Parts: sequence; structure tokens; C-alpha cells
Amino acid sequence: MLQSYASREVTQPDLRQFLEELYHGRDLSSFRAGQTIPMNPQVVWVVCRGVVQLSTLYQSGDEALLGLAGPSMPFGLPLTLIYPYQATALSDVDLMGLTMAEIDQSPTLAQEIGRHTVRRLRQTEAMLAMAGYRRVEDRLRQLLLLLQMEVGQPVAEGTRISIRLTHQHLASAIGTTRVTVTRLLGQLRGEGQLIVDAHRHLILPMGVVL
Amino acid sequence: MLQSYASREVTQPDLRQFLEELYHGRDLSSFRAGQTIPMNPQVVWVVCRGVVQLSTLYQSGDEALLGLAGPSMPFGLPLTLIYPYQATALSDVDLMGLTMAEIDQSPTLAQEIGRHTVRRLRQTEAMLAMAGYRRVEDRLRQLLLLLQMEVGQPVAEGTRISIRLTHQHLASAIGTTRVTVTRLLGQLRGEGQLIVDAHRHLILPMGVVL
Repeated sequence: MLQSYASREVTQPDLRQFLEELYHGRDLSSFRAGQTIPMNPQVVWVVCRGVVQLSTLYQSGDEALLGLAGPSMPFGLPLTLIYPYQATALSDVDLMGLTMAEIDQSPTLAQEIGRHTVRRLRQTEAMLAMAGYRRVEDRLRQLLLLLQMEVGQPVAEGTRISIRLTHQHLASAIGTTRVTVTRLLGQLRGEGQLIVDAHRHLILPMGVVL
Repeated sequence: MLQSYASREVTQPDLRQFLEELYHGRDLSSFRAGQTIPMNPQVVWVVCRGVVQLSTLYQSGDEALLGLAGPSMPFGLPLTLIYPYQATALSDVDLMGLTMAEIDQSPTLAQEIGRHTVRRLRQTEAMLAMAGYRRVEDRLRQLLLLLQMEVGQPVAEGTRISIRLTHQHLASAIGTTRVTVTRLLGQLRGEGQLIVDAHRHLILPMGVVL
């Protein structure tokens, strides 16, 4: 299972400030929620604002969630073996593109990218461990815990998942149907283990241990 | 699916040489095949020789493969959110232990570790994508392809998987039973898509596209 205390150890997202100092005046690329982010085999994108969904498509037509890149996290074709590999803005996002050559030439930049690559590794491994739970309820609980750690924002009622994932998104992340996710989320709400706010964001109430 | 050409792009395992220069005379820790590798919250292990299996245990008693760390790859508690987290030597291995403080203090060391963390990220993401295949045959084929890329050695007949994984290992890696793995491997052998050598190592014949 996930070690929830580990969230406290996660490196602060200081890469953005570092990058801004390094590349003062360099343009960011901005994408609106829902837009597909273009990928280049030589370019690593670093998220400066927002959250990007990484996924693949199977020949069956199924889509699988492979990661969520939040602030300071790197993603892109140089960091993956998967084809097809899709990146979609889950919120409005600002990205900075860096070539592998630029990263290799600067040990300090490489160190910062490396540090945040560790965050991606931890998250990806947590999703892999999640996929191994036999019961779909357990997979959903682990996914909510992971989302809480990765994109959770403290609010009065508890921790708000700062991105809006559809039930279909959640279903494809844990290998089940939309109908099952809707039923299980309803069950968690009924048990007081989940709140859905006016903007349809999920909130994990204070003190709830999923 | 996996991009098999990507294997050609994987960085050469030059970290060992780098580490040997940096820490001339520093002791390596050696473990025999089958031994459990002790873990410390502050220590990152770097593989100098051999292959280490990373896994977790579920309350159900099931074990899930989370990664295979080969030469130059880092692993350890600072790089994971998972508990319990187990590391087992799959072959005789030599490891070098580095503290997070040591890594943070040396941009060059951090750059090297970061580069090989990318390899771990790619592998972990590939395992996550593999877990999303509905058909167990497809998951097994993807696993063999990944093993070929990660621990494959060219031999006269094709590519030999340089570690010996039991059918139970393969089964837990792809969420199926040992019996099913045995049946499917037999099927692949029957179709000439797999060779098992005298030492019970798997060989993927030349030109076979799984």
C-alpha cells in the first residue's frame, strides 16, 4: 500500500523558479484543458502550471492512464518506451520545453530534472502497485490516495483533488467500467468517505483513511 | 505497445565506472541469488553487477513485481512510495550504497543517478502499460519483450533472457496463475517463438516479433 507519510517528503516544486532564472524571458507553451500536447522525440516538457494526463491506447480501443504530471514534473518521448503515448492537458497548463542536449549540458539542470524524475518514478510505481490489487474497490481507494498525494489541495473539509477526472478517466485508470466507478464513488459518499463539491471536485474528508 | 527500437537508445551502463572512479576503494555489498537485500530510508542502492527484483506484497498474500534493477540502475526506499517494498537478488549481485546527502551534494553524481532513474521510470511505465492489456497472452508477450530489452543478451539463437524467472515470478508479474504461464510458454515454444536452453533460460529467437 501507499505510505501516506511519504507525501511530506516529496521535494518542493522549486524547479519552476530554477528554470525561470535559468531561462529568463524564455517563452512557455500554454495549452487549454482538454488540448492534446504535441510531442517531439528530442524534447522533454516540464510542467510549470497545471496537470497533464499521460496515457496510451490499446488496439482494443481501451485507454490506460500512465501518469499525471503536475508542477515541476518532466514528461515526454525521451522519458518513455511506450507507443502510442499521449499527453492531454487536464487543466490549463504552462509548459517549458527542454531538449535532451540542453539537459545533458547542464549538470545543475540535469540534477533538478533528475529529482523530479524520481517523483514520476514513485508515482508510476504506485500506479503499478495499484493495478495489482485484485478487488476493484481497493484499486479505487489506492487511486484516490495517490491523487490526494499528487494533486491534493487542503480545504476546510479535507483534501480536494484539484483536477476533475471523469468517471471514465478513473475507470480506465483502474481497469474497470464507468458504471462500476459511479457505483463505488456513490458508496464512498454514502459512507461519508468522500465529498463532491459544487464544482464536481472530489474531496477526501479530514481524517478519512481510505 | 513497447517500442522495441528504443532499446538501442538506452544509455550505456557507464555509471559503474563513474562510481568506481569517484569512490575508489569503496566497498561493494555483495548478495547471492535469492537473498533479500536490506533497505534503509536514507540509502539508494546502485546495481554494479547482476539483477535485483523489486516487489510488494498485498494483504491477500499476492506478490507483485514492480521492477527489475539491472546494472547502473538505482533503487531503494528514497525512490519509492510503496510499503512493503522488497528487493531480492535474482542473480549474484554487487551493490553500492549511496546516501541521499551524498547524491545531493554532487551535481555530477546526481546527473548520473538521474539518467538511470529515467531508465527505471521507462521500465516501470512499460510494466504499467503491460498491466492494462486485457488478454493475458498479450501481457506475457509484452513482459517477454520488456525482459528482452532490459536483461537480454545476444546469443547465437537470438536474445537470451539473462535471469532465470520462475513461472510463478512471471505469473505474479502479469496477474495470472502459474498454470496459465506454463501453458502459454509451452504454446510459444510449440510455435517456435521461444526457446528454453539447457540451463532453463528463455531465448527469444532471432527475428521473432512477439
